[in-house]
Amino acid sequence: MTERFGTRLARAVAEKGPLCAGIDPHPGLLQAWGLPADAAGLEKFALTAAEAIAPEVAVIKPQSAFFEAYGPPGVAVLAKTMKVCREAGALVLLDVKRGDIGSTMAAYTAAFLPSGAELEADAITVSPYLGFGSLSPAIDVARAEGKGLFVLARTSNPEAQGLQNALLPNGKTVAQDIVDTAGGFNADQSPLGDIGVVVGATIAPGELDLSRLNGPVLAPGFGAQGATVADLRALFGPGLPGVLPASSRDVLKHGPDPEALRAAVRRTRDSLGPLENGQ
Amino acid sequence: MTERFGTRLARAVAEKGPLCAGIDPHPGLLQAWGLPADAAGLEKFALTAAEAIAPEVAVIKPQSAFFEAYGPPGVAVLAKTMKVCREAGALVLLDVKRGDIGSTMAAYTAAFLPSGAELEADAITVSPYLGFGSLSPAIDVARAEGKGLFVLARTSNPEAQGLQNALLPNGKTVAQDIVDTAGGFNADQSPLGDIGVVVGATIAPGELDLSRLNGPVLAPGFGAQGATVADLRALFGPGLPGVLPASSRDVLKHGPDPEALRAAVRRTRDSLGPLENGQ
Repeated sequence: MTERFGTRLARAVAEKGPLCAGIDPHPGLLQAWGLPADAAGLEKFALTAAEAIAPEVAVIKPQSAFFEAYGPPGVAVLAKTMKVCREAGALVLLDVKRGDIGSTMAAYTAAFLPSGAELEADAITVSPYLGFGSLSPAIDVARAEGKGLFVLARTSNPEAQGLQNALLPNGKTVAQDIVDTAGGFNADQSPLGDIGVVVGATIAPGELDLSRLNGPVLAPGFGAQGATVADLRALFGPGLPGVLPASSRDVLKHGPDPEALRAAVRRTRDSLGPLENGQ
Repeated sequence: MTERFGTRLARAVAEKGPLCAGIDPHPGLLQAWGLPADAAGLEKFALTAAEAIAPEVAVIKPQSAFFEAYGPPGVAVLAKTMKVCREAGALVLLDVKRGDIGSTMAAYTAAFLPSGAELEADAITVSPYLGFGSLSPAIDVARAEGKGLFVLARTSNPEAQGLQNALLPNGKTVAQDIVDTAGGFNADQSPLGDIGVVVGATIAPGELDLSRLNGPVLAPGFGAQGATVADLRALFGPGLPGVLPASSRDVLKHGPDPEALRAAVRRTRDSLGPLENGQ
């Protein structure tokens, strides 16, 4: 039987800590590394980062947009990068924020989740603007393939506040309803369900109740964007077992030297020690 | 000076009518056309459809998911398909529903909007789950490049009802707020602004006020999904000048014969005559 994503994730975090390291080859970083802004520069950047960082962390998160920006050759580099990361033993969470309906959502799912897909990931981020229910085709395939989903819930960018905290007829905010619906899918799963959410590490404490999620929480905003380990503890206290703090620029800015990258990711990973101990 | 998207769209619709023809190579259609479910079958399907349909319509809408499902080779087929459509004189609206923040949103924009990009489109669909404000990098580039955006507002799938009609502190629904914010960007543009919205042709009449949008409306749901010309008139009456009814399966099911495809797209296009006359 295929092992569930939640089980695989819990084991990886127990072994290597909860850090989710981003691979975000944005143009400024390529420039800082002395690389050209083309598919060859992208490949050099992404493979250097993947080889140095992936062996050190539980989860590695390539940002699809920075690869797609280079057209079809950029997507080919993404496929290669994901393969390197998975072979190094990291779980790959592809940040693609896809969201659509019916057979179209199924097509996105087919691109990223099935075993053997060229862009095979262990999990992807998805957007619920078309309704949580529109994600069903992805949930079905994720479960069958031992893969995970991270549904956008409450992100840390200020422009997101209005829509994500809009009120539903049931009295909940949009974000809370997403967390609770994900929790419904995770009920009775142990040690952790397969349907995660994305919650910015810089939102207001108490804004979201994660106590019944029983699934992973991707928490961008840690490090360069300002959230500290203390912030993570304050914000996610009861949900800590499944929280994956995401950091990319804080590590990647130390490249292109692989040793410097490795040292940076180890420092960041080790700084999360108190987070784990606080569980 | 680069001509604006709204101006180019209005001219194309005046010449060829408002039909937006989809190229959705979903697995069932490939099978119906007797094609293998691989990148070669995808290419045969998409190029046959593009060559037959693109010369006949103002706007052609490839659905990115069905190409991405085949990995990097599928994305290369998408690039080729878009090129064929643009060379045939159709405006290409790439249905990708991307949505992210800051430099990540800028990277998606770089993939699809700039002149000369391998996946260059005349417009793309975008998702506002991270807040309308998160789309700013795309709006800036669209305007500079004479391109357009279609922001998801109120889609026709039943699961979308809750989130898209959730209430903001200003008393508006999420969908209405998106329409009004788009309208703000379109103010004073003539004959039509560049920032469109996606509104399903099967939502309830009166649910959304489009009278101050002054921009294009992509209206999926026409044809196979049940909306008739009379429904379009009832739903979009005051906003008709910018409405693009989208249809894909009703045309594509007539392939693989190019003559049959052409005849089907002409029938669908001509059935919209009363819509135009009703303006």
